[in-house]
Amino acid sequence: MRDTVTAVYEIESALPLEAVAEVMAGEQSCGTFVAVARETAELRARHAATVRSVEELPLSGATPLPGAAGEATEIRRGRVTIDFPLVNFGPSLPSLLAAVAGNLFELREAAALRLVDLDLPAAFADAYPGPQFGVTGTRRLAGRAEGPLLGTIVKPSIGLSIDELCALVAELAEAGIDFIKDDELQANPPGLPLAKRVPAVMEVLKRTAERTGHMPMYAFNITDDIDRLAYHHDLVRDAGGSCVMVCLNSVGLAGTDYLRRRCELPIHGHRAGFGAYSRSPQLGIAFRAFQKLARLAGADHLHTNGIANKFYESDDEVLASIRDVRTPLLGGYAALPVLSSGQTPGLAHATYEAVGTQDLLVLAGGGIHGHPDGSAAGVRAMREAWASALDGEPLDSRAAAVPELATALATFGRR
Amino acid sequence: MRDTVTAVYEIESALPLEAVAEVMAGEQSCGTFVAVARETAELRARHAATVRSVEELPLSGATPLPGAAGEATEIRRGRVTIDFPLVNFGPSLPSLLAAVAGNLFELREAAALRLVDLDLPAAFADAYPGPQFGVTGTRRLAGRAEGPLLGTIVKPSIGLSIDELCALVAELAEAGIDFIKDDELQANPPGLPLAKRVPAVMEVLKRTAERTGHMPMYAFNITDDIDRLAYHHDLVRDAGGSCVMVCLNSVGLAGTDYLRRRCELPIHGHRAGFGAYSRSPQLGIAFRAFQKLARLAGADHLHTNGIANKFYESDDEVLASIRDVRTPLLGGYAALPVLSSGQTPGLAHATYEAVGTQDLLVLAGGGIHGHPDGSAAGVRAMREAWASALDGEPLDSRAAAVPELATALATFGRR
Repeated sequence: MRDTVTAVYEIESALPLEAVAEVMAGEQSCGTFVAVARETAELRARHAATVRSVEELPLSGATPLPGAAGEATEIRRGRVTIDFPLVNFGPSLPSLLAAVAGNLFELREAAALRLVDLDLPAAFADAYPGPQFGVTGTRRLAGRAEGPLLGTIVKPSIGLSIDELCALVAELAEAGIDFIKDDELQANPPGLPLAKRVPAVMEVLKRTAERTGHMPMYAFNITDDIDRLAYHHDLVRDAGGSCVMVCLNSVGLAGTDYLRRRCELPIHGHRAGFGAYSRSPQLGIAFRAFQKLARLAGADHLHTNGIANKFYESDDEVLASIRDVRTPLLGGYAALPVLSSGQTPGLAHATYEAVGTQDLLVLAGGGIHGHPDGSAAGVRAMREAWASALDGEPLDSRAAAVPELATALATFGRR
Repeated sequence: MRDTVTAVYEIESALPLEAVAEVMAGEQSCGTFVAVARETAELRARHAATVRSVEELPLSGATPLPGAAGEATEIRRGRVTIDFPLVNFGPSLPSLLAAVAGNLFELREAAALRLVDLDLPAAFADAYPGPQFGVTGTRRLAGRAEGPLLGTIVKPSIGLSIDELCALVAELAEAGIDFIKDDELQANPPGLPLAKRVPAVMEVLKRTAERTGHMPMYAFNITDDIDRLAYHHDLVRDAGGSCVMVCLNSVGLAGTDYLRRRCELPIHGHRAGFGAYSRSPQLGIAFRAFQKLARLAGADHLHTNGIANKFYESDDEVLASIRDVRTPLLGGYAALPVLSSGQTPGLAHATYEAVGTQDLLVLAGGGIHGHPDGSAAGVRAMREAWASALDGEPLDSRAAAVPELATALATFGRR
């Protein structure tokens, strides 16, 4: 039997959906728009992608993509499942992308075309080591054996002086936070380069840890040209740091894999830019497919957003993303979902009830730094909110005992 | 004065467009959703992105993106121009992407959000070498000083045996083609790896060149993990090859730049996957912005599609893309537009009239291989069609003298 990659698409077309599925399979394997010499039956048997199923779905109601063939009134929607022979590309993520997520988005036959899921053969597990630390390794390095890891993002995102940054990091570390990250906008800017930021921040974290006995994980954003990734990683490692962060779409999945193969620290995978190819329901790549590729490429932490966030996704979509990241891939590839964007203490109970797991990294930026009594009070409020959720204690009862939590709820609201 | 990157967006929103523009500038520089400590006026003066202009545009009529705030009936469309301080990211393509094309696609404030253009400061020219060969170098290596370079894609895309591939390459080389490329689906598959394909193809090309005195450029598709790019490039170079190809979106712009810094051959940049973030008019990144980034990353050849192609773009869009690739960037970065998809001899006159330049690489896959008298006849027909277009001779008059051209027109039609 052929080893195959199975790709699932949601499409719309005014043409018969079965015919469109055949065009997709043909264009993305051995066909072109006219019959050509040497395209033998034997070649097709070995290399042709094959349509496994076409199921009709209710129409989305969204405008057809530009250039779509046929009459708009004839459009139907369907889920198309196609098997691609592994022999066409081998277990190579970049080559896989050209096959399952390449030219086909441009086909006139499609009024909508979205890659929603991928099922990969074991050969990919042999080729890609994937997350090196995952949930367990991250808990160990962050010193938080149970409960959700609570984190924050340095704010303002950019522009702090090194002294201001160090003061903020000291305050957060003193407050007992588990995780601090650079903003996705703060990478290696000329004014505050990693060469200056990494040793200064690590010095603060070590000094604080001497007193508190606990050092938070700090994700340094090392997003940059490929040739600087290993250098910046080594800088973090050598300074005693425990995490590096990259914007997955900026360095690319191939760039993430390149880093992974040289990496001795967890990789915090930020999804900035994901919306460009995923927010339209008519086009692109859905989170379920994307997160599998990102985990293969080595991301230990993956942003899913959280409920009630400031971005476009519904709570149901966010919760599905969290489940996706926690679902084993090829028998492993455990990664930690990162709940972020607009997260506040008032969301802890609703989140825990919906996800049913403590294996989460919950980030609050404004929800911590914007606390009227300062960042330390913000951390305390988040911690108490989550502790009460895990204990099954109502939020109000805990807030009555913890003034920082009461203030946070009054300031940021609740779900 | 601050060095800035100017980014132009087309947006839709039910909220006042000016307010949305301010949110975009804030979210993508030093703001977050609540005021935070240490966000001083001085910090903002240095690091805040600023809205330069907001111009109203006619509505697109397309469905608003999911999660968009406000009432659909209130939606307006506008062009927003924002200046991002260079100091926030420095001249780093990956960091630039996180700022101008990162989280903002996910904003609820936007019912549509598309990056349509970028104006970059000179610092990027100092940081990125860009195309090494461009038009001039490609002409030199392909041995075609004037007229469009005529090329083709190996078809069937995948599945040929090494002997079949060599026979096809010999036939095309004998026919006097300027350029041959692997399909974007044919990279380094286990059945026909580059280590086997490169020496065999180069041997055929050399043997043919000894007789014909002319060796076409062959673009070997080396798309793969980053760690294999330099190895595969060296394989091509050492075998006497003159071009490497990558799928820009599969290896990433950062991966392309990584290759460029180790490359001694022109880089043929394929855009497979571009549609995923560009086909919706409501979202993503337009070709004008994309091609600037791809040229900075080092692509010598850039796919624009051709007129009357089998994909979604209108002829006007294709022609604008060809103009974009030919427009100097930061005073240079000359790249060669690659016209492909459904190209046939019958399009030569219409194309030449519309683009007004010979500095083109025109690829025909099925339009050459599908010629009833074989690939060599297909090449002859393409060459004669273009020669007559450049000579100002009507297509019919040339077809009357060249049977291969007459057959091609009868088979594939004309514009």
